[in-house]
Amino acid sequence: MSMGRIAVSPSTMQRYVTELGRLGETPEGGLCRFQYDAAWCDARDLLQTWFTEAGLHVHTDAAGNIFGRLVGADDSRTILTGSHLDTVPFGGKYDGALGILAALAALKTLRDNLGQPQRSLEVVALCEEESSRFQANFFGSRAILGLIEPSELESHVDAEGISLRQAMASAGLRADLITDAVRQDLDAFIELHIEQGRVLIDEQTDIGIVDTITGLVWESYEVEGRTDHAGATPMALRIDAMQAAIEMSAAITRRVEDEGPPAVATNGQWNVYPGSFSAVPGRVKFSLDLRHPDVKVRNGLLDAVHEECAKIAERRNVRLRIRSLKDESPATLDPGLQQVCRESAEACGLSWKAMPSGAGHDSQLMAHHVPTALVFVPSVEGRSHCPDEFTSNEDCARGATVLASALARLAY
Amino acid sequence: MSMGRIAVSPSTMQRYVTELGRLGETPEGGLCRFQYDAAWCDARDLLQTWFTEAGLHVHTDAAGNIFGRLVGADDSRTILTGSHLDTVPFGGKYDGALGILAALAALKTLRDNLGQPQRSLEVVALCEEESSRFQANFFGSRAILGLIEPSELESHVDAEGISLRQAMASAGLRADLITDAVRQDLDAFIELHIEQGRVLIDEQTDIGIVDTITGLVWESYEVEGRTDHAGATPMALRIDAMQAAIEMSAAITRRVEDEGPPAVATNGQWNVYPGSFSAVPGRVKFSLDLRHPDVKVRNGLLDAVHEECAKIAERRNVRLRIRSLKDESPATLDPGLQQVCRESAEACGLSWKAMPSGAGHDSQLMAHHVPTALVFVPSVEGRSHCPDEFTSNEDCARGATVLASALARLAY
Repeated sequence: MSMGRIAVSPSTMQRYVTELGRLGETPEGGLCRFQYDAAWCDARDLLQTWFTEAGLHVHTDAAGNIFGRLVGADDSRTILTGSHLDTVPFGGKYDGALGILAALAALKTLRDNLGQPQRSLEVVALCEEESSRFQANFFGSRAILGLIEPSELESHVDAEGISLRQAMASAGLRADLITDAVRQDLDAFIELHIEQGRVLIDEQTDIGIVDTITGLVWESYEVEGRTDHAGATPMALRIDAMQAAIEMSAAITRRVEDEGPPAVATNGQWNVYPGSFSAVPGRVKFSLDLRHPDVKVRNGLLDAVHEECAKIAERRNVRLRIRSLKDESPATLDPGLQQVCRESAEACGLSWKAMPSGAGHDSQLMAHHVPTALVFVPSVEGRSHCPDEFTSNEDCARGATVLASALARLAY
Repeated sequence: MSMGRIAVSPSTMQRYVTELGRLGETPEGGLCRFQYDAAWCDARDLLQTWFTEAGLHVHTDAAGNIFGRLVGADDSRTILTGSHLDTVPFGGKYDGALGILAALAALKTLRDNLGQPQRSLEVVALCEEESSRFQANFFGSRAILGLIEPSELESHVDAEGISLRQAMASAGLRADLITDAVRQDLDAFIELHIEQGRVLIDEQTDIGIVDTITGLVWESYEVEGRTDHAGATPMALRIDAMQAAIEMSAAITRRVEDEGPPAVATNGQWNVYPGSFSAVPGRVKFSLDLRHPDVKVRNGLLDAVHEECAKIAERRNVRLRIRSLKDESPATLDPGLQQVCRESAEACGLSWKAMPSGAGHDSQLMAHHVPTALVFVPSVEGRSHCPDEFTSNEDCARGATVLASALARLAY
């Protein structure tokens, strides 16, 4: 099979990325497209139109995952490809979205140029991966894998007090049918994603073929001191929750820097109450994202961090509550599918390298249940989770072409 | 004149404080009653009813200050008493409100028991002091003193982008008439306020008679680093704006603690962008509130703080912008009025002490233009700017009675 026949063009990818990238744009720059919000619904509608135009059979499930199916001669099993539709707050146009769009472009070029496959292929836009609105932890993948607890529909609540169930209803989804979203027919999942780091771009390599995905821990730290008047309360009499929290954050950062790469820790989300110029902060919530590919090392770091923060809390007379929100184990990707991806990259005349992923992905969860591959394309300057996120149209097209080639090998 | 005749009862103060304290209550606890918002309008309406019931002539000005006038035999000049109606975010029921309610109770008891005064007395609910919604810097007092620049009506914008002018219109106020709010007829301003510190309560003193009010400086610090993916960006390659900001905040705190009392500094308001678990913070805004009664010492501290923060910014490769938002000079209160307050406290059989105020007040600005007094009542545990703010009904009533006595001395 000639690779030229199924090549995806840069202009196709440019059009897809640009048009989908308008949905959720904010005046400040960056995208806010959160699970089941208005921008997310608009994006869903646009994808359904594009899937239909590409000649795919469109269906959705109760979780809000959107599928476009290219039915094979044998329609009993499915090779799934795609990524997530939601964004981080003020995120970019490529994270998640590119995996959906590359999959759409791949299925379209395969159908247009190779006709009906032997095995069915399906593109999926997963409803949620970033936990931007709910701490919903891969809600889309979990729905497909049957890993959602019914109680989650009530327990996950957004910043405005809206439950997952209510949000689903307002997006026209029937939460009571969530178990119908489970798929038993998946033979493989292949996700294309931007690297979100600077390895490929610095080494001028076209394609990354991921072998392992680093797990992560997410924790919420709540520090309680005492709110007092900023003018009438001497420094010595204060119990300033923010001063305690910043000492903790500095200690966490120092500890992880001392450990050295590839350990990383981030305190990215901060809420300081009451949040007034003239009030000593009485309560602070901040997030911890801690990653290391070796679970033992990671847990050792976590223990050290807990101990240091407890000491700071005691010395400063504040109350500290740490809640664990996510604990994702590292994932190893399927060797057979990695081999298919390598052969595809070479058949397309592209350079590739095997590499780990520091970022989490739907693939991470899928890999524990279905043979899974994860393919990276370069990120300019490694920027991600910000409006400056960028991958050239040529690199997007190269990735989509490799994906099409891999799917062709698997399905035709 | 017998003090017993004009005594204000604890039950009167309890009723006033409780009923007004419901307006702006939040489910989380604490009051949010911000300039021109719905709770503020409700509070305005309630005060107008109460002022009318007390037999006072109600009027309002274009800024939203609310007045209740007890007309004297000579109605050419006015003795004004009151405080502000707005609250800090999640504040208490006493800060500001008690000064209005004590003044109302005082005028009511004087009218009921002593009849018409020689000189006119007036209670005022000033529309804004806390800068909770707009950085409006004593908007109510400034309207009365003719210190508002027309451009402020557009330049002050709340978190939702609503300008002062728009907010005024939605509260039924005509911004174009703001200059009509200027008062030329004021002979004195007397403000009763909770201490917001623990001096009176710890020393079991009934009444504080303030001699000076500490000035303050408010600055906004904006730190710009680079947003990156928390998983894919090694620690050594990050430009984490929050880690830079917390080093600055710790340095500011240390510097002011080294200076010793009465210097105080507070970093109370924090906004961290993009605010996601999995994104390295790219931009942080935090507030500085710095106070010292000696302007020279304060400015020296400020210079030191600026220098240290600039060094941190340079070392960490972040951009730092510092904006000055407020620079209030200290105020000396009127010796004659202090004497009247002392005599009134003694006539009421109460203990008193002369003291400075670490907190800013409308009195601070008024004192530069009109003879002004500021009377403190005890704050339990010194708590303020929080829901736990509390002054016993008895202490509220003692304060109101001293205020009535002082007004009687001045007006009858």
